Amino acid sequence: AAEGGSAQAAAQPAGSGSAYETLLVSTEDDITTIKMNRPTKYNAITTEMYSEIIRALEQAAKDQSVLTVFTGAGDYYCSGNDLTNFTRIPEGGIQQMARDGGELLRKYIKAYIDFPKPLVAVVNGPAVGVSVTVLGLFDLVYATERATFHTPFSLLGQSPEGCSSYTFPKMMGVAKASEVLLFNQKLTAAQACQQGLVTEVFPDSSFQAEVWTRLKAYAKLPPNSLALSKQLIRSVERQKLHEVNDAEVERLVERWLSDECMNAVMGFFQSKAKL
Amino acid sequence: AAEGGSAQAAAQPAGSGSAYETLLVSTEDDITTIKMNRPTKYNAITTEMYSEIIRALEQAAKDQSVLTVFTGAGDYYCSGNDLTNFTRIPEGGIQQMARDGGELLRKYIKAYIDFPKPLVAVVNGPAVGVSVTVLGLFDLVYATERATFHTPFSLLGQSPEGCSSYTFPKMMGVAKASEVLLFNQKLTAAQACQQGLVTEVFPDSSFQAEVWTRLKAYAKLPPNSLALSKQLIRSVERQKLHEVNDAEVERLVERWLSDECMNAVMGFFQSKAKL
Amino acid sequence: AAEGGSAQAAAQPAGSGSAYETLLVSTEDDITTIKMNRPTKYNAITTEMYSEIIRALEQAAKDQSVLTVFTGAGDYYCSGNDLTNFTRIPEGGIQQMARDGGELLRKYIKAYIDFPKPLVAVVNGPAVGVSVTVLGLFDLVYATERATFHTPFSLLGQSPEGCSSYTFPKMMGVAKASEVLLFNQKLTAAQACQQGLVTEVFPDSSFQAEVWTRLKAYAKLPPNSLALSKQLIRSVERQKLHEVNDAEVERLVERWLSDECMNAVMGFFQSKAKL
Repeated sequence: AAEGGSAQAAAQPAGSGSAYETLLVSTEDDITTIKMNRPTKYNAITTEMYSEIIRALEQAAKDQSVLTVFTGAGDYYCSGNDLTNFTRIPEGGIQQMARDGGELLRKYIKAYIDFPKPLVAVVNGPAVGVSVTVLGLFDLVYATERATFHTPFSLLGQSPEGCSSYTFPKMMGVAKASEVLLFNQKLTAAQACQQGLVTEVFPDSSFQAEVWTRLKAYAKLPPNSLALSKQLIRSVERQKLHEVNDAEVERLVERWLSDECMNAVMGFFQSKAKL
Repeated sequence: AAEGGSAQAAAQPAGSGSAYETLLVSTEDDITTIKMNRPTKYNAITTEMYSEIIRALEQAAKDQSVLTVFTGAGDYYCSGNDLTNFTRIPEGGIQQMARDGGELLRKYIKAYIDFPKPLVAVVNGPAVGVSVTVLGLFDLVYATERATFHTPFSLLGQSPEGCSSYTFPKMMGVAKASEVLLFNQKLTAAQACQQGLVTEVFPDSSFQAEVWTRLKAYAKLPPNSLALSKQLIRSVERQKLHEVNDAEVERLVERWLSDECMNAVMGFFQSKAKL
Repeated sequence: AAEGGSAQAAAQPAGSGSAYETLLVSTEDDITTIKMNRPTKYNAITTEMYSEIIRALEQAAKDQSVLTVFTGAGDYYCSGNDLTNFTRIPEGGIQQMARDGGELLRKYIKAYIDFPKPLVAVVNGPAVGVSVTVLGLFDLVYATERATFHTPFSLLGQSPEGCSSYTFPKMMGVAKASEVLLFNQKLTAAQACQQGLVTEVFPDSSFQAEVWTRLKAYAKLPPNSLALSKQLIRSVERQKLHEVNDAEVERLVERWLSDECMNAVMGFFQSKAKL
């Protein structure tokens, strides 16, 4: 399949050096592609990967590309927050871990809110947790029919982030958003498209070819017109999004320290250990 | 059909005593069910029922249940505001009646805005007027295929309430919301689901069984995670909802005293008297 | 086809005199119809037509009609901003032209935001540019199946107006709105209806008959109830809409003076000259 500006999963892209441990970042045809590159872990986001994505977004914001594309290596898009993040307890104890995790998440989401160019998700497979919620901050979301969208926050005693407590009810109405954000309903690609989370769904066999053909054409449009139009749309709600991000992170830090969450995360590792 | 925590229409539920004249309220399987219980009047909401629902919501907010469910006894969900409310003129005359009615409605809607746990509507049949508009303040809305959704405000010379002047355009866009709120278009269950007012529609034959199976499973999720996530979603627009409620009630009190409304309500009773 | 209150394209409607050069305006059955009347130019909006529409809306706001309807003469609804507007350079040069154009556009959109009665678009054919974006400010939008909706802003180096940077993401979600507003995706009538921009789509053969039958019935509803209910819905976001309008116009004036836009507009006229 023609993958255009995206690098192959196994290879280091030309010209990017080895700036990132967890990502493949490359620029081609006026498109900067950020590919999550932990395919054996379903691209689960470690603390390091959060930091690297923030850095990659800062770079992409400044480079000469017209579009920035987000995608995943392998068959998964992203399995969300890597739960091993909860097992690295710093000297300050779990309170410190929760505060640090909250501050990192806040900066991570902030990088999406403030991104100044059109941001495109090429959802190449299942997406979970924060990789789903943050899609509400993208400008275009293309998905293979194999993609699913799952945010099992309450199963883990947690609460929504990525501004989804604002963007999801806004796009799909509270009656649909609550079943997704509170009650763990997994959306198919078609359902996610009908609810407005996904721009368009493609057959898996032609997904990469069709999407990259379209993106290469989009990248030839007047770049200032695109960036300024995107910023115009974002400016209407940028302040609201920052407020929501702050409130969500505050709530989530409390959640991480709650019995409900600790028991659920411990249960996860115990059931994994039994396998 | 398995009705789970919901009481039978004709029977007083165990443990609830006779606290309510117009409702059946019971708690089972961590679910508190508030069932409107005037089936011979299609569960039309009298002044007394408004007050009892406010009280039932206050109780449910404080009890140990995880979910609160709203439903109707009989084949109807709710036929809306009981128009006989307009025929009980107090000493202060119709101005006083309009002011009192406005204040009661304001408190009624406020109870939904401020409700702290997931609130679920089990729409067991046709819904009219304020029982439709207030659905925009629920977290989940399940409907039998027999349900319809009708808000004939302008036919009665009135104007929208229940925060629907905000929630309906937000969920379905102004072009769809106006036909419902201004021009009396009755939605089928399928249409209401497509417009985001309803979470999911079920065949009538399996409606109660399917819905209650799902709700009992939901009620086993971590309760604090659910309540705090719901509050997070609500907090984004709580202040706005209170402002909208106040503005809608102010407008409606004016409407109730208008010739358009008085003539329409008189016409309703005259046509009823001829039957 | 029964066209109700709408005048025939070629004839001057009875009682309207010759108040307008570019419009046919008439009132019948409590409906004031504003028909764009440059069918040989696909109803492209000249500077004069912008001013005349503002005036027609001011008149309709004050007259005794219940509904105001917008439609186009001929097979097109409206091809948007007439690009010859860019070729009439005033003494102050192109800076002056951009400022004047911006101020006219700001007043034009303001007239829609502040319109006090239900406003209905009868989209009789393809719609382009500002005639599409402003539909987000209508209360009802009926479309023939022949209608299409196209906003090729970035092709012309421009940016969205008509409050669409707010109304389109609100009604369809950012993931769908960006493809329309940034990437020039043309919507069919069915797609526009699914995205909430259009209330309902009709077969072309019965379009006028069905729509006008419905509108004549709507115009018999209590007029104050309709107007006040519409104003209630609008009041929730009126201030926001004015802010968005101002921000969009400011951005667009900058765009008109940019190389990207000037090159694109010149390209348009050059390709036209070659035909």
